[in-house]
Amino acid sequence: MKGFGAHTSVWAMVWTPDSAERAVAEALRHKLDFIEIAMPEPSIIDVAHTRALLEKHHLASVCSLGLPERAWASVRPEAAMEFLDVAIDKTADIGAQALSGVIFGGIGQRTGLPPTEAEYDNITRVMQHSARRAKSRGIQLGIEPVNRYENHLINTGWQAVQMIERVGAENVFVHLDTYHMNIEERGIANGILAAREHLKYIHLSESDRGTPGYGTCGWDEIFAALAAIQFDGGLAMESFINMPPEFAYGLAVWRPVAENVEEVMSKGLPFLRNKAQQYGLI
Amino acid sequence: MKGFGAHTSVWAMVWTPDSAERAVAEALRHKLDFIEIAMPEPSIIDVAHTRALLEKHHLASVCSLGLPERAWASVRPEAAMEFLDVAIDKTADIGAQALSGVIFGGIGQRTGLPPTEAEYDNITRVMQHSARRAKSRGIQLGIEPVNRYENHLINTGWQAVQMIERVGAENVFVHLDTYHMNIEERGIANGILAAREHLKYIHLSESDRGTPGYGTCGWDEIFAALAAIQFDGGLAMESFINMPPEFAYGLAVWRPVAENVEEVMSKGLPFLRNKAQQYGLI
Amino acid sequence: MKGFGAHTSVWAMVWTPDSAERAVAEALRHKLDFIEIAMPEPSIIDVAHTRALLEKHHLASVCSLGLPERAWASVRPEAAMEFLDVAIDKTADIGAQALSGVIFGGIGQRTGLPPTEAEYDNITRVMQHSARRAKSRGIQLGIEPVNRYENHLINTGWQAVQMIERVGAENVFVHLDTYHMNIEERGIANGILAAREHLKYIHLSESDRGTPGYGTCGWDEIFAALAAIQFDGGLAMESFINMPPEFAYGLAVWRPVAENVEEVMSKGLPFLRNKAQQYGLI
Amino acid sequence: MKGFGAHTSVWAMVWTPDSAERAVAEALRHKLDFIEIAMPEPSIIDVAHTRALLEKHHLASVCSLGLPERAWASVRPEAAMEFLDVAIDKTADIGAQALSGVIFGGIGQRTGLPPTEAEYDNITRVMQHSARRAKSRGIQLGIEPVNRYENHLINTGWQAVQMIERVGAENVFVHLDTYHMNIEERGIANGILAAREHLKYIHLSESDRGTPGYGTCGWDEIFAALAAIQFDGGLAMESFINMPPEFAYGLAVWRPVAENVEEVMSKGLPFLRNKAQQYGLI
Repeated sequence: MKGFGAHTSVWAMVWTPDSAERAVAEALRHKLDFIEIAMPEPSIIDVAHTRALLEKHHLASVCSLGLPERAWASVRPEAAMEFLDVAIDKTADIGAQALSGVIFGGIGQRTGLPPTEAEYDNITRVMQHSARRAKSRGIQLGIEPVNRYENHLINTGWQAVQMIERVGAENVFVHLDTYHMNIEERGIANGILAAREHLKYIHLSESDRGTPGYGTCGWDEIFAALAAIQFDGGLAMESFINMPPEFAYGLAVWRPVAENVEEVMSKGLPFLRNKAQQYGLI
Repeated sequence: MKGFGAHTSVWAMVWTPDSAERAVAEALRHKLDFIEIAMPEPSIIDVAHTRALLEKHHLASVCSLGLPERAWASVRPEAAMEFLDVAIDKTADIGAQALSGVIFGGIGQRTGLPPTEAEYDNITRVMQHSARRAKSRGIQLGIEPVNRYENHLINTGWQAVQMIERVGAENVFVHLDTYHMNIEERGIANGILAAREHLKYIHLSESDRGTPGYGTCGWDEIFAALAAIQFDGGLAMESFINMPPEFAYGLAVWRPVAENVEEVMSKGLPFLRNKAQQYGLI
Repeated sequence: MKGFGAHTSVWAMVWTPDSAERAVAEALRHKLDFIEIAMPEPSIIDVAHTRALLEKHHLASVCSLGLPERAWASVRPEAAMEFLDVAIDKTADIGAQALSGVIFGGIGQRTGLPPTEAEYDNITRVMQHSARRAKSRGIQLGIEPVNRYENHLINTGWQAVQMIERVGAENVFVHLDTYHMNIEERGIANGILAAREHLKYIHLSESDRGTPGYGTCGWDEIFAALAAIQFDGGLAMESFINMPPEFAYGLAVWRPVAENVEEVMSKGLPFLRNKAQQYGLI
Repeated sequence: MKGFGAHTSVWAMVWTPDSAERAVAEALRHKLDFIEIAMPEPSIIDVAHTRALLEKHHLASVCSLGLPERAWASVRPEAAMEFLDVAIDKTADIGAQALSGVIFGGIGQRTGLPPTEAEYDNITRVMQHSARRAKSRGIQLGIEPVNRYENHLINTGWQAVQMIERVGAENVFVHLDTYHMNIEERGIANGILAAREHLKYIHLSESDRGTPGYGTCGWDEIFAALAAIQFDGGLAMESFINMPPEFAYGLAVWRPVAENVEEVMSKGLPFLRNKAQQYGLI
């Protein structure tokens, strides 16, 4: 988790051997340092194929997911542990460095009430179990705060740090996302300031999840704060121009948020890369 | 709908005679030009009391709502018309100038799919009916685009204009909200540009719905664009520091988004008023 | 003066036949709609060569200058008229559409005192004379407010409008520059708002006069305000990466403000063009 | 140099006993932690009066100046040392903590050429001498980069750090100013990033030197970067609403840049203080 990468959702939301080949080819063409592989159903990943593909091209990777309802950590901790065990193993098996994302709950999970201590206790227990498993497999775990609509449990950088302190494991880090920060943080840099010592990964995602540089995110503020805390983790562009129906409900993308993939890659990617270079981050 | 006002949710989410007295006193103390009264259940409004109270203080007003699930316009158009008939009558009866908000659907309504023509057709039919009723009662109707999570039907200024053109009634206007624009528009001013000729009302709401001036909204950009289109409608501060549980699910506010009402009124309100004055809007 | 162009200073500060050929070739390569030609000494322009070159490539143009000290309008109005007569004639002779810039004084002119009515009277008289001459030659005159250090007479869009109203000629317009606006205007869009009806030309210049997109200018705010006033004049990128010593004093550029011309053209130009397209200006 | 203070120029550009009483009274009324006293002519300061006044009210202070032409360090190093000796002594005598500002040259000094090694050598020699003197008197020296028009020698945070490394004295620090950074830095936070380890003092000055919060400075970006580098020096509001003619040339303020002192104090000061609190800086 170093340098400049991208979430492969731009090219492939479902990780089949075919889409993996396509995504890796695109990543190499755009000279990415790493890719993020969505792993909503870890069991379907063709481990041998992906591992060989990534090794062949010396491409680093991170896996990410949100828990399915049957395995939400706050309400079904045992199922969550079981689910994450498989995901952690798959992550390690393909040679990825971390499993990250909404690993504490569902994308779209909301009780309609503020989070409770009981919910946090369950999550803590799951995270402690999973952190041990992750450690035994040599990978790290990332906690990604998401906005109030996608989950009611961890919405800000500060809340993610609180959870990490509860868990007390060394291999758990904060994974921020500018799209969510733009909604949740009091000043977009405040998530970065709150998470500073635990921050190892950040999604660079525009305010509408479309083409970076075309929305309302304060990019100079974001990159300046990252440079100021001497961030040296992974910068991952994320855009949801390609959204299969099964993800649409949680993410709530009802219209094309960018003209097309070409716009994201030919305008959004250089915009972010230039800004990251301007602030000495890559 | 002129000048600088506020959504009364800061003081009172449920509009009883008591809370009305309190909200109006606060509005006068803060020298507001108008108030917005939330009317989720029009039938409970004490018309005579509110009308007398507003007249006594020469305070202008706007009513707003989101439709309850039993009356979502896209799926239950007849029920929506009936519901809106009552709301329009109550709005006119208390002497308010407009009924606005998510009058085309629910706050929290999502099919999980992109909007369909059939849904828009139903909404169009409801809006045409309600526009006639509103006209007969001398009031206007406002359509407020909300973000992708709160509704899948109208998320941007451009979509609101499309609906208004379908409806074809003179007394229907666009009601923007900076909180939603910050998520949905490609450049926060683009909602204002798209809606320019139809824009008569705007919620000035911070990116986290907390204290204006403390979030990520590009306020200079917003006010400059309003000044540039020569906006002369109502500017309404909105903050959701006080959120009763029954509204929390749709609005997804799980933690205090401002320190307290005092912070909103003593810091947020002057911030917005100063900016509005700087750009010649009040 | 329509569409997207550039000040040729990026390629050529002194307009010789050789540099003209180079600048025009670059302008075509970058698909510019027009070029701005610096004309500090109008007499040296090879009229026949430039006219033929521009006509051959159907390239529109604007000329610009600051008055030399011997011809500052506020103190030597007769000399200013004489100087501008030549400049207007050269502008018309090469087929350019306008003569613009600091045509009311010097770049670096400061009395050390606030402007006086007598100074403005002299400038008014010169502008009236020059506007008539320009009209007779079919060209327009632009007044460019510059920052407090470069001139003490006209620093803001509002002051330019005041001068235009004093002059009372139809063919005099406001020419803004984002670099100067970033220093002088109370909110960067306020120059655009003040000049709205008279604004026909704008320099898109970064806050340090380097590579657009790398400085502090609020570009979304600028482009949104231009779109909102329905600006349809010329958008001219300006960068002072190449600055011969004779211009350095007035412009006060003491170090390279961009890495090189390549950075300006390969990063700054696409940045501005993408933003102009995003806001529907080109 | 801790907490939130202000340059006394808002109340008094010339530091007489009378104006000192007035400025201190205002500083106390606005609950400032320290004041900055302009010391363009150190010899005129009534040391005993100022010291007693500051001690009586337990008010911390910093002195600042630009060198007069007769003592520009780059061209007349001996005169500069002599001048600074007096200024350092006066600073120490009144009990101030630092002498800062354009202590390396003049406000308005420009050769018309890029800075030379010979100029920097002279400045280095002067700074080394003055740092020793300052150390012997128990005070610190601050170097304030100013914009290209006010001086050609040190315009950016990076250049100030270069000078400090040349000087090699522990008691010399970087003093930034947001007004100048807005013009000179490639991204307003970059001066803060460049100066991070040496930064002990910052002028919070708006882009037009008027009322903070009304201009183009990216305040969230500035405060976020300060918080991120864990800045714990002095935050000094600066506004040049009151400008006597003798300072106007160097500072080039030709019109009122704020409505009046009241606007600066009742709107600008709370704006900056709220932002500093938001980012945990005070």
